[in-house]
Order: sequence, then structure tokens, then C-alpha cells
Amino acid sequence: MATGNINVSVENIFPLIKKFLYSDHEIFLRELISNATDATLKLKHLTNIGEAKIEYGNPIIEIKIDKDKKQLHIIDQGLGMTAEEVEKYINQVAFSGAEEFLEKYKDSAKDSGIIGHFGLGFYSAFMVADKVEIITKSYKDEPAAHWTCDGSPSYTLESHSKSERGTEIILHINEEETEFLEDSKISELLVKYNKFMPVPIKFGTKTETLPKPEGAKEEDPAPTQEVDNIINNPNPAWTKQPSELKEEDYKGFYRELYPMQFEEPLFNIHLNVDYPFNLTGILYFPKLGQDMNMQKDRIQLYQNQVFVTDNVEGIVPEFLTMLRGVIDSPDIPLNVSRSYLQADGAVKKISSYITRKVADKLNSLFKNDREDFQQKWNDIKVVIEYGMLSEDKFFEKADKFALYPTVDDTYFTFEELREKIKDNQTDKDDKLVILYASNKDEQHAYINTAKEKGYEVLLLDSPIVSHLIQKLETSKENVTFVRVDADHINNLIKKDEETISKLTDEEKETLKGDLEKVIPSDKYTVQLEAMDSNASPFMITQPEFMRRMKEMQQTGGGGMNMFGNMPEMYNLVVNTNHDLVGEIFNTKTDKKKERLIKQSLDLAKLSQNLLKGEELTEFIKRSFDMIK
Amino acid sequence: MATGNINVSVENIFPLIKKFLYSDHEIFLRELISNATDATLKLKHLTNIGEAKIEYGNPIIEIKIDKDKKQLHIIDQGLGMTAEEVEKYINQVAFSGAEEFLEKYKDSAKDSGIIGHFGLGFYSAFMVADKVEIITKSYKDEPAAHWTCDGSPSYTLESHSKSERGTEIILHINEEETEFLEDSKISELLVKYNKFMPVPIKFGTKTETLPKPEGAKEEDPAPTQEVDNIINNPNPAWTKQPSELKEEDYKGFYRELYPMQFEEPLFNIHLNVDYPFNLTGILYFPKLGQDMNMQKDRIQLYQNQVFVTDNVEGIVPEFLTMLRGVIDSPDIPLNVSRSYLQADGAVKKISSYITRKVADKLNSLFKNDREDFQQKWNDIKVVIEYGMLSEDKFFEKADKFALYPTVDDTYFTFEELREKIKDNQTDKDDKLVILYASNKDEQHAYINTAKEKGYEVLLLDSPIVSHLIQKLETSKENVTFVRVDADHINNLIKKDEETISKLTDEEKETLKGDLEKVIPSDKYTVQLEAMDSNASPFMITQPEFMRRMKEMQQTGGGGMNMFGNMPEMYNLVVNTNHDLVGEIFNTKTDKKKERLIKQSLDLAKLSQNLLKGEELTEFIKRSFDMIK
Repeated sequence: MATGNINVSVENIFPLIKKFLYSDHEIFLRELISNATDATLKLKHLTNIGEAKIEYGNPIIEIKIDKDKKQLHIIDQGLGMTAEEVEKYINQVAFSGAEEFLEKYKDSAKDSGIIGHFGLGFYSAFMVADKVEIITKSYKDEPAAHWTCDGSPSYTLESHSKSERGTEIILHINEEETEFLEDSKISELLVKYNKFMPVPIKFGTKTETLPKPEGAKEEDPAPTQEVDNIINNPNPAWTKQPSELKEEDYKGFYRELYPMQFEEPLFNIHLNVDYPFNLTGILYFPKLGQDMNMQKDRIQLYQNQVFVTDNVEGIVPEFLTMLRGVIDSPDIPLNVSRSYLQADGAVKKISSYITRKVADKLNSLFKNDREDFQQKWNDIKVVIEYGMLSEDKFFEKADKFALYPTVDDTYFTFEELREKIKDNQTDKDDKLVILYASNKDEQHAYINTAKEKGYEVLLLDSPIVSHLIQKLETSKENVTFVRVDADHINNLIKKDEETISKLTDEEKETLKGDLEKVIPSDKYTVQLEAMDSNASPFMITQPEFMRRMKEMQQTGGGGMNMFGNMPEMYNLVVNTNHDLVGEIFNTKTDKKKERLIKQSLDLAKLSQNLLKGEELTEFIKRSFDMIK
Repeated sequence: MATGNINVSVENIFPLIKKFLYSDHEIFLRELISNATDATLKLKHLTNIGEAKIEYGNPIIEIKIDKDKKQLHIIDQGLGMTAEEVEKYINQVAFSGAEEFLEKYKDSAKDSGIIGHFGLGFYSAFMVADKVEIITKSYKDEPAAHWTCDGSPSYTLESHSKSERGTEIILHINEEETEFLEDSKISELLVKYNKFMPVPIKFGTKTETLPKPEGAKEEDPAPTQEVDNIINNPNPAWTKQPSELKEEDYKGFYRELYPMQFEEPLFNIHLNVDYPFNLTGILYFPKLGQDMNMQKDRIQLYQNQVFVTDNVEGIVPEFLTMLRGVIDSPDIPLNVSRSYLQADGAVKKISSYITRKVADKLNSLFKNDREDFQQKWNDIKVVIEYGMLSEDKFFEKADKFALYPTVDDTYFTFEELREKIKDNQTDKDDKLVILYASNKDEQHAYINTAKEKGYEVLLLDSPIVSHLIQKLETSKENVTFVRVDADHINNLIKKDEETISKLTDEEKETLKGDLEKVIPSDKYTVQLEAMDSNASPFMITQPEFMRRMKEMQQTGGGGMNMFGNMPEMYNLVVNTNHDLVGEIFNTKTDKKKERLIKQSLDLAKLSQNLLKGEELTEFIKRSFDMIK
């Protein structure tokens, strides 16, 4: 039996690192700036604990393009490296300097915000550069070192005259990657990845206007000066304590995050936890309205102020991906699949923490200023309703603040609603019947009839409301939801009342026969009802169950299309106590009877938006003739 | 100056390979089966060229689960390895056996379909296994070797008694990855990644019913036998020549690809090219209807019959991502970013090849069976129209087969339409005016009026049609599109005709004053027109430009919401030659005049679907009273 060590062959692995390390070439800049930030924060830490006896000062990181020489420079003023350290950290691929540093100084370094997790980041430079140079001077009293490597595994290392502390990386950009020599491209990347990194990053200069000196004349131009163009905000709002921030600060940070968004957010939720995991962040509720799709993927994920991604699927519960803002956590594993993420324990805890914080915030907004909360309801209801559907814990918590508005803009919680309507809207089987409309305009006549009875009519118009209703019916006891046009008013909430019919049963049979000769039976089922003589003579209704199942199908009910493909079926309710119906019954000539029935059917169809095309054109023409 | 070689440290890179090589752990199975396939196809090649003097036979790959021992076995009957080869190919990470093989046999091996591109694949086993064993017997006359490694860089290698040719990989599955010991999980992965791999893959057995022996009685059970359960089809349709395949074969393969799809595809496009790049595949046009979003990401991408992804964004032009089917090409770079993909030369060529093939196929379908093409138009138009908008080359080619249907189901090409309508629909400024409707029902009255004039009215109802119209107007000369309800009939196509007005200019002024007292000016602009006395007395129109801009905004026009947020504005066209309008003019009592105007306005609103809510309820109530 032989034993041995597996050998990683450099000649072969080096091209792989270049090719497969990151799918996006542009990542190299983020990695190199992370290293530079690292080196700066390490120096700060060593100065703080007294191990580096130097003046920390105000170090910055500078990015410079030399287009003629096809070079990109990344320069920091951090702790630098001695020749020996270059040997150790650079020439040994996958030897993570940051990890070793954290290990050595683990107690004191915990909060110093050191970024790098493994040492491969530096080699991402070879994704875009043919040759890479490092010129570095340690904070220790040793000569500077100059390392050069052309992407083959061999390198040169010599001393250098550099006298200021810090590291300069020089990338000799590859012919195919010259876009990284464009100011606009580098600018774009700096804004994307480094906008909130903790050390100031300089990219070029800008002209600043100074105040005019005293005694200057009106026509004298104001003096200007060139100043460093710092592209980042090293202290973004989420790194501060909520107590340090005012409402304007939160709004200002929103504009920093989304400069192209002109609308202000409705409110924010400041996340701040360090046990059992580390997470900070600010989430904003934007004005959403009905649109569930437009706003996805806008929450930005950072790790120690380095932008990672704006796809937080799997980290944030799905219903909250409609929000905006920032989450910063070193505890979220990256480079793993979404399915792995969702199974990860830490991520599960993060997700349920965020859900709880959002629910708590909504609850306190509701309790502290109900008026204001009601005004915002239309813009936030989709998130809340979607959350109630998808997360059982949120469903429970939302019971306290989820609102059910009526068509007259009164907002009830579920319990308030139950209290309000229980006397008038409990049917003979002791079920609480909640009436709702999905559209004030389209169901106007039906809403009116219900209101005349003293019933409350909710306005439930979110795209997913049929699912929510279904869930409420199964989780609340003895409650049923019925849309106002599901049946005629006496049947919506059945009580032990009977209206006396003006027609005998025999007469009804005759009338029904007459009606069915004219009304197409494939679309309408004729239903004779003895109602109030003032109620509509003809009226079209659509049974609740079938309609709701169809709606659930259309908004993602899943499963078979059984209900989705069924034809629309309606009932034609004819009020046998209405004068017009009496007239139809008594009319002797078939032609006149038919004309009356048809015109009545057309009017009933109009109020359900069912009179269309040629039928409508004919109806309008006939009606113009009738006025004349 | 010192020089040296960069050193990749195994201790550090090994965990990285395990952690970061693939974001999805499940990929290990695909990699190991790819290696097994590789080994089998290499043996076939060596047998074919006479270098391996053995019987190739019918080798299969077998996957076995041993739940008690927590082991997963992958067993092939390929060329196997000697101990020396294990040393070379396995112990040297990133040493690609496949690449070396291809290099050595490059001319003869070209078509043997060898899969592996780099040697890291094997190590993906350590993503799910604590310990991995290889038991392998080469086709050469040498003893079998047994290699064992527990994930640390050290391994053992000894001889083994295995006597059959081939390699067995034994994975000792990690505690956290026990899902890979479930039949259902392995089954799912085999179907996902290996459904069409070129060597038969066995996973367990299944019971097959045999024909009854002659003379068996009715009540005798049919005999059964256990047979290998082969999970893949090693010769999928796309690997064959189009000449070998019939219509049923294409349909059968569609069902193989999408077993849950019950609807048949409309037609298919067989892709087959080997210069300047290698690509085979079959694309299917499904029935799409109006829905542009449902069907994305359904084309599957393979490389040499190994499933890679069903996200072909960047490879296939966006408008074709609505299609279904398979693309197989070894020339598509993987593991690179989408933006890199889109800039890649080979990928660009592939994308434009596919576009051309699709256009050619559509053109030949149109030419060979126009009747059939027209019947399919409604299901394919969204793809074609989207292609015309997004790819200029496709726009040019589509001119020959893009259809413009009328409301009466006549289908014209653009040139046929121009020929048909040029005499009757050229206006006084020599512009060809193309009339269209977006909805036969909603615009019924307007369509009728246009048809009475002998005009053709197109039915253009795709969601993106306003963009297409805009593009057609700028690319065709002297053509303008107008929706039928954009103005009254005499203005839609302006000719040098004048209808004499029954009212004098002075009378018109008076009438206009009367009307404007009743008609709300914030919504309607009153426009008096002397028209045919049979034309509608009151009519609501909406100018083309504003409406189209609003529609373009709503379907992704980009830019500012300038038009999207403008209120809807309508014109109320009053026909001064209609009797009813004469009556309104002559009516002396204000009350009656107002009643006539209101009822006329309501009827006009009805035909534009603008009478809603309370107004509609009132209108219906009034109308019921009028019948009575």
C-alpha cells in the first residue's frame, strides 16, 4: 500500500483561478479595494492597541488610470508588507492573510471590520491583467518591496525606493479588457461596489467653488479649487445607531441609495442585532400600489459595507423582497446555491428576525398613529396580505394591524369588523357573513342595494385577495365572505324572513316558461324571486364559489386548470314583485313580451358589464331612436 | 532580485475547491457520471481505431445506493485506470485527462463526444462525501487499483481484486448531505442532468410484464420479469439528422422533454451546424397566446448531451426565449457572466444563426401552407412581433411573413395590405392610412362605421403592438396607423369632401354653448361636425398620439412617465346633421334640453365603456322606468 499527498499543480490551477474564480470579471476591482481597505483597517487596529507606533492620520485609497500605459493603479496607505510578508501572503495562493490576522488578534479585532475571508481575491487581478505589480512599504522599518508576475506561476521580487507607507497595485490591463481603462466604467464599478466602504476612496479630482473674498465685485468670478473626488460615504446611515438618526437622515439615505427614485418612502425599519447573528440594515416601504412585480430585487446586500448583490431571494422572506433598502451581515454565506441558502440555519434565523421586526414596526405604526397608517394602507397592503398568505407567524401578528376598508373608507381590523356587523350580518345558521366588492364602479348597483339594508361592504381589491379570503375563512371560526353580486340581497345573508309573492306558483311557472323562451339558457339560469317591489326587476348574479376558484386560478392557484377553464355562468334573478315583471307577465302579444324581456335583459347585462360588441351597438342605436 | 514560482498550497486550496467549485452541491453527480461516460466513450474510440483489442459490447453506467453503509456507487464499464494512471489523473488536481486525450487523438477523437474539460470535476465528490474510494481496472492487462481519500490531501493507493474492466466510485456520504442517499433525490437528479446522456444509465430495476405463453388460461396472471431500469435515452432526437425524423418523432421528443405539457407544439425548427461553430438542437413554437411572461426559461442547454441549464438568456435572442426545446453546443462558454456571454464572438454568431434559422423556417411555413400559417398566427404573433421590435435583421426578414389580420379574419402581409387599401385609404396628403382596432367588442360601433365606408380595419391586439406600429411608421414610407376610435369617420382618413351642414355657423355657436353648459369640460372637448344624418348623433373619440404614447409607457416604453400620468382626454363629437341634435337645438325648455343632452352623452359614453358606477346605476334605473 502506498500513501501520498494529493498534489495541486500550479500550471493547471492558475488558469482555472483566472477563469472560474468569479463569473464576473469586474469583481477584481471590488476584491482589490477590499484588500486595500483591509490593510488600512488593520493598521488602524494596530495603532489603536499600540502595536504600531505611528500616526494613523486620515488614510485614503486612490484609484488611478494611466490610459497611455494601459495601467490601472490601486493605492492604499495601510500597513503595507515587507518582502518576507509578500513571500508569505502573495506567493502562497489561498493563504488568507485576513484569517490569520483575525486568529491572532481575535478578541481585539472583532469590531475592526476586517473584510477579506480568503486569499484568492488578489489573484482575480489576473482575470483582467496580463501582468501585475505590487509596490509595498510596510509600516515597519524595512525597505519597500517590488513584486512582478506576468500570470505564469513565476514571479520576481526586488527592493524598491517607495518611502511612503502602504501598497500600490499596478494592473497592466489585458487587450481584451480595455473597458477597465475607461473613467466611466471604473466610476460605475466604484459606485456599484464601493459606495459605502469604510475608507475614503479617491478617484480623480473635482472643481469646487469657494466663497468670494470680502470686497469682491459682483462681476468677479468666484474662486475655485481642485479637491479630491471621494466617491464613497464611509459612514452610511445603517452603520449608525437608530438614536443618532432623524427622519431626514433616513430619507436622505434613501436618496443616496436610489438617486433615480423621486418618490419618498412611506417609512423605514432599522435592523440592528448582534446576537445570535450579526446584522444591520435599513428597510424602506415604498409606495407599491397594486403592482407586485415591478419592484423586486431592490434590497441591496452588503458584507461589512462591501456591496455583494441586489438579489436577496432566500435571505429575506419573499413577501419582503418588494421592499427597498440595505442589509449588511457578515453571517450570510455567499457563493452557495439558493436552495442551500434556504436550508442554512443562520439564514433562517435572519429571515425570521426580519419578519418579526417588520411585523413589530407595522404594529407600532398602527398603534401610534392609526390615521396615518390607514392613509398608507393602500400602498402597503399588497406586502402585508402577501405576507399573511405566505408566513404563518406573520399572519398571526398581522391580525392586530391588518385592515379591512369599506367602500366608504372606514378601516376596520378583523375584530372591529366582527363587532360592528355581528348583529346585522349573522345569518340564520349563525354564520357571520362578510360582504365585499372588488370594484366600486363595476359593482355599484349591488353595493348600493347592500348599503340600503344597512350592511357594511368591504372593498377588497388586491390581486391576491381571493387567496386571503380563503385563508381567513379557514382560520377564523364561523365566518364566510360573499361578494355583493354573488346573489340577490335576500340570499346574500339568509335570514328567517319571507317576502310574499304577488304571483301564485302556477303564474310563476308560466312566467318562467315565457322568460326561458327568450333568455339564452347556455349563459343564464332564470331564478324567480319574490322581492321588494322597489328592487331591480332583472339582475344578474354570479355564485361566489365558482368565481373565487376561477380568480384563485388566475392569480397562481397552482394545480389543475379545472376551474380556470370553466365557462362563466350567471343567474338571472327576476323580481316577481316588480311592476315591470307584472307587465311582462300580463302582456298578451308575443312580440311585445319578447321586446320587454330583451330590453330588460340588456339593462341587467349592462350593470354586470356584460353587454358588449354588436349587442351594445344595437342597444345604443335603439336607445337613441327612443329619445328622439 | 529574487525569482520563484507561485506556490499553491494544497491544505488551503482543497477546502476552497470543496466549497466554491460549484454553487450547487448536487452537481457532483453530473460530474461523476460525465467522467464515467467519458471513460466509456474513450474505450469505444480506442476499440474503433484498433488500439484497444477488446470486445466493446454494450457497456452501461450503474448508480447504486447502499443506505445502511451510507454509500453511493457510480460504476462504469469504460476503459478504467492502472495504478500509474490514478497517480497521474487523480492525485494531480486540475490535470485534465480529457484534454490530454483529445490532444493525443485529436483527429480521430473529434466526433467521439468526449465530455470532460478539466479535471476538477472528480473533486466535487468531496462536496457531499467525507471519504471517496476509487476501485478501477484498466482495459490493459494490469491489476486493479484501489484509491482512498478522506478529504484531507493524503490518500492511500493499493491493489484490488476487481476483475471486470471499468471504474467504481464509492462516496461515503457526509452526515449533512444524506438527502443524496434517497432514491427519490437521485432519481430527480438523474432525470434533470442525465436524461439524454450517450451511455445507458441504470438505476435499480423495474418489473416488466411479458406476453402470456400460448395456451395460457384467461385467469392465469401474465408472467413478469425484473429488468434494468434505464433512466436515459442515449440517442435523443436532436442528435439525429432531420432526414431520419418524422413529424411524430419531433412530437414524441417534445413529450419526452416536457412530460407535464399536454398541449402539442405548433411546429419545430431543427438546428444543425458544424461550422464555424458546433450546434445542434430542436426548437419548438408552443401555443403562446397573449402571455409573454409565463413561458420563459424553458429551452434547455446541453453540452454533448449533458444538461447544463435552462437559462439561455444571452445565448438565444431574447424574443426566442419564449420558445421551448433543446440546444446542444460545446462552443458555449459556461461559468461566465451574462454580460461576458453577450460580448463573446462565438455566442453572437450562435445567436444570429438561430435568429436566421427561425426566420427561414417561418418564411417556408408561410410559403408552403399559408392557410395553416394563418391559423397559427395568433399563437406565434407575440414572438414574431417582439422579434421585429428587438432585432433589425429579423424585422427585415419578417416583412415577408408577418401578418396583419383584419377584424374579419383576412390576413394580409404588409405589401398585400398596401395594395388592397391604397386607392380607398390614401388621404388628401398622399398618406396611406391604416385603420386598426385593439378589441372587436369594445370598438364595435367604430369598426362598423369604418367598414360601412369600405375601409379595411386591422385587429391588432398584442400587448406590444403600439411599439410595433411606431416602428412600422418610421420604417415604411408615407404610412400612418390610426385606431378606429381616434376621430370621427370623416377625419380618420381626410379627403377633399365636404358635407353640408344643416346648421349655420351662428346656430352652431349657440348649440355649442348649450352643450358646454351640460358636458363637463375637464373631460370632454365638444367638437361639432356636419356628418351624414345617419351617423351617430353623439360619439366619443380619443386622439391617436396621446393614447398610443400612454400605451407604450404602460408596456415598457422606458424613460419618463410623462404620458403615462396624463389624464385621459376625450373629444365629444356631435353630428349637427342628425335629427336628435336638431331636436336638442330646437328645444326651448332648459330642463328638457339638459335631459336630452345628458341621455345622449350617457349613450355615447356607453359605447366607449365610460359609463360606470353611480352614473351607470342611475342610467339603468331611468331606463327601466322608461320601459314600464
